[in-house]
Parts: sequence; structure tokens; C-alpha cells
Amino acid sequence: MADRYSEDELIARIFAPIAGPAGLGLKDDAALLAASAEPLVVTTDMLVAGVHFFADDPPDAVARKALRVNLSDLAAKGAAPAGFLLSIALPGEWTNEWLSAFAAGLADDARTYAAPLLGGDTASTPGPLTISITALGRTPRFVPRTGARAGDGIYVSGTTGDAALGLALRRDPALAARLSPDARDFLLDRYLLPRPRLDLAPLLREHASAAMDVSDGLAGDLAKLCRASGVSALVDLPLIPLSDAAREAIELAPGLFESAITGGDDYEILFTAAPDFSPPEGVARIGAVTAGTAPPILRDAHKKPVIFGKLSFSHF
Amino acid sequence: MADRYSEDELIARIFAPIAGPAGLGLKDDAALLAASAEPLVVTTDMLVAGVHFFADDPPDAVARKALRVNLSDLAAKGAAPAGFLLSIALPGEWTNEWLSAFAAGLADDARTYAAPLLGGDTASTPGPLTISITALGRTPRFVPRTGARAGDGIYVSGTTGDAALGLALRRDPALAARLSPDARDFLLDRYLLPRPRLDLAPLLREHASAAMDVSDGLAGDLAKLCRASGVSALVDLPLIPLSDAAREAIELAPGLFESAITGGDDYEILFTAAPDFSPPEGVARIGAVTAGTAPPILRDAHKKPVIFGKLSFSHF
Repeated sequence: MADRYSEDELIARIFAPIAGPAGLGLKDDAALLAASAEPLVVTTDMLVAGVHFFADDPPDAVARKALRVNLSDLAAKGAAPAGFLLSIALPGEWTNEWLSAFAAGLADDARTYAAPLLGGDTASTPGPLTISITALGRTPRFVPRTGARAGDGIYVSGTTGDAALGLALRRDPALAARLSPDARDFLLDRYLLPRPRLDLAPLLREHASAAMDVSDGLAGDLAKLCRASGVSALVDLPLIPLSDAAREAIELAPGLFESAITGGDDYEILFTAAPDFSPPEGVARIGAVTAGTAPPILRDAHKKPVIFGKLSFSHF
Repeated sequence: MADRYSEDELIARIFAPIAGPAGLGLKDDAALLAASAEPLVVTTDMLVAGVHFFADDPPDAVARKALRVNLSDLAAKGAAPAGFLLSIALPGEWTNEWLSAFAAGLADDARTYAAPLLGGDTASTPGPLTISITALGRTPRFVPRTGARAGDGIYVSGTTGDAALGLALRRDPALAARLSPDARDFLLDRYLLPRPRLDLAPLLREHASAAMDVSDGLAGDLAKLCRASGVSALVDLPLIPLSDAAREAIELAPGLFESAITGGDDYEILFTAAPDFSPPEGVARIGAVTAGTAPPILRDAHKKPVIFGKLSFSHF
């Protein structure tokens, strides 16, 4: 293993260049963030190879996904990133090349999203590659899950289910082969690389009564938001925005519609806002918050409630 | 698996009771810490079963260790805890009983050290139990690694090497059997359960020019502190404080002296302070910072330099 970086080299050569000033060059035991008049938002997500991504995904994409799912949580709370910490448990077979590519993806995203590396930890593991990122952010107004009120509109950004369909294509190459190349590439890419909607944070701070990012499927995440707010909801499934690629896949395999609504990894924003809120382009009104604590009702074009087999991705 | 908690039950029943107000009942995507006039100190450590602890260690001890190694970093920086985030990847065989015991240890320590749970993530893994904790703290003065100046005294808290010897006993039951029960129990316990020296944080803030916690062995950690500060050091090995139990073990197996000085897991504080600093009881002066960038010199009772085979625990 003489050709592999030592832990000190790994930190100095691979990770220190990504560090922001608060990371103190990754030479100390801890990061030091200056005091701020804005409250601090903190979130963490752990990704395990073979569970949250494919072990043979490109290393830069693995790094980007691990960071972006955390930044997505900050975005949903209306926060701007202040930085992140990375812990990584490396299985026996890691190489300098793999880690350099991982770090290149991380560095690129850290720049793009203005989220510098603040610190971290490295470990070896006899198990799969495991990545834990904690992201920190600041916001003048934290947008909670708990603020939805009866009468509010329900909104979702972007298009729903693309990542879930991308995952379905990864698992079913025969199905993937039947799609047009453009649609296939689009859906596969949406699974591989989430787009944290940090661009929506100002809008959410100003208008959202409640918000969360859609990570475990729109149907289940809406149920969570309603539970947290003590409300119910009425959603019109035809109003849920689907991409052309998703429509093409669903036309080939209609069962995929359920996957699109209940699958995970969208990393778009689900939020509620006052009835007079006028959404910008790229944000769709899909229903309304209703009184009561019954599970949300999702209805089809004929206004008939649709019951899905399971509402969302389960972690166990 | 119907007898195991779902992810939602796990959070609601096991972890939410440990959450502080900033954790928002663990019902949101993120924690929300109020703004503070003091800067924020952030640190993270990842622990892997079979690497950082034994897979059959008591679950409450595993939880305590994972939290305490992080609190130890805060202590070394002069910080008081503000809370922590926990990510845990659970292997297939976890049980509610194991997790309840884990959470009980975590809850107890969270109370003892005034470090409430702020958030976290749960995942399943085909590999070993993996725990990542990020701890947050506040301090009016961050004690860096980089502040040691020639002429400063070098100090270490508590006794050195007990945990490394405890680990040696875990690995060599025949050796353990030759120790007195009191010494054996003491050393084994010091390996199992670090004591983060948060009690020293005020002293460090007031007096230390540089500090770090001893996690990878006194000799190697001193070398790191000197490198970060651009200085060298002269340490008298006989001044390094050893417990009675460590002395007993070293008498039986003299090679263990090297383990005590270069082994990890002490979680005591190594720091430097002005020459006129007068240490309190339980803190020993072991040498002095010297000019230059040569590696620290450790000398024996005859003032002869001692060269150890390896300076510290290596993570790979």
C-alpha cells in the first residue's frame, strides 16, 4: 500500500485545498465559524455504497450527491450554505485515483454552491464506502415543516419522480433500452446528481408557510409535512409536474407513475404558501392544505382518490 | 422484522427524547441554533465497529465513546458544547434492545455534558455498525494548535497511556490475567470510556497558547502540535504522568511503556502555556517548547533521546 496516501497526505493534498478559512487549513481539531447575527441551520445525511448509490458510480458523482442532498435540506429551510464537514469510511480497495476524482467533484460543488469544507474525519472500514456530511447554513428566517395552515396552496418545484424513474432504469436495463436515448440519459442523470434548489431559498424565506425537500417521495413527504403541521391535504395528481422523459417512461410502463409519485431522490422543494401566493415559473400548485389530520388525499383526473401501495421510500 | 422499529418510530421513540429545543423534536429537516455572540466550534469523528471499538462492546459504551471523542475535541479548543448530530448506519442484525441501550447511554451523556441531540440520520448498511457524530460548541476564545512558542511549557492532563494499555489487555487476555483485578479493570475502562476534559476548557481559554486532545498517542500528537506551530520540543519521559495501573502493567511488560506514549485514545489534553504558568493539580509539566522545526525530542531519566518505532496510531 506504499502507493497510497497516508492520512496526513490525504488531508493535506486531497481535502485541504477544498477548505474555507473557517476550516483552518484542516490542521486543527475543529473548525471555527465567526459569530453571525443569523441563526444557524444544521443538517446531516449519511450515504452508504450499495444502499444510497451504486458502488460503481463515478467517484465525483458520489461526492456531489453526498454534498447536494445536504445542501437540499438547507435550501428547503430557506438557508444559504456556510460550509460542511465530511467523514468518510474507506473500504480496503480505495486508490489515490479514486479519491482524487472524489475530491475533484467535491471541490467543484463546494465552489458552485459556495459551501466550503470545514473539517472532517477519515477512517477505514471492512464494509462499504460510507460518507457522512454535515452541512451548516444561515438564514434570517427558518422555514419549518410545521407551518402549513388549512387554505394554503401546496407547491412543488421542478418535475417530480425523475430520479425514481432513473433508479428504475438502472435496475431494469431492458426497460431502459426501450426509452429514447435523450429521455434515458435525462432520467439516469437526475438519479445520479440531485440539484439542490438553493436558488429557491429566498422565495421560501419570503413566502413559504412550511417546506421540506422531497427526498423520500412526494406522496410520503407530503404526508410527513401534513403530520408535522397538524393538517390534511387535497392534491390533484394531474397537476404534479412531470418531465417529458418521465411521461415517455410512464407511457411505456404505466406502473412507473406510482414510482414517480412515491419514489425518492427528487430533491425538489415541497412547500405551502398563502392562497394568494403566485408561484414563479418552474413551481407548480398541486393542491391545497385542508383542515383535519387525515392522511392527504391524492385524486386523479376524475377526482377519484388514488391509493398507492406504499407512500415513500423506507430506509430499513 | 415486524418486531423492529420503523425509521419514524426509531426517531420518535429512541432519539427524540434526547433532543434539545434546537433539535425541533427531530421533526424537521434540520436543526436551528439561535445566533450567538460567540464563534462556533465544529468537529466530527466517525467510528467503525471492529476498527474504533469492538463490535461486542456494550451498546451504551459505544454511544458514549462516539459522543465523548467529539466532546474531547471541543474541550481542547476551550469550547463548551452546544449540541451534536448523530448519523448511524445499522447492520442487518440490530435489535430494538440494542438500540434502546445505545440511546440510553447517549441520553445519559447528553445530560452529563450538557450536549443535546440536534439531529441526525439513520441508514442500513451491509457492513459494520458505523457512527458519525458532529459536535458543535461555543467559546469566547478558540485555542488553536498553532500557538505554541519557544519557551512555553508543555503540559498534559490526567495520566497518559491508560487507554492504549487497556486496548493491549483486550488483545492479550494472558497478559490481562497477570494484572491485579483493580489495575486491569481501570485500564480496560479507560479504553472503553474516554473522559472528555470539558472541565479544563476554562483553564485552556485563559492560559493555553496551543492545545489539542491526545487521541492518536502523546508522542505523535505532540509532533503534530509542534508542526502546526512551527516549533520543536524537549520532553522528559519520566515527567509524563502514569497511573498506578499503567505502572503495574509496564512493570510486567516493559514494552508497554512505548505503547503508553505512542498509543491512542487518551482523550486527555496536551497544551502549551507561558513559562510562568502554574498548572493545577492533575496537570503535569512534561517539557518545554524549543525553537526550530526538528521533531520533538523525548529523553529518558539519563537525558538520552529515545526513539520509538512509530510515533502514533495510524488510521490506515
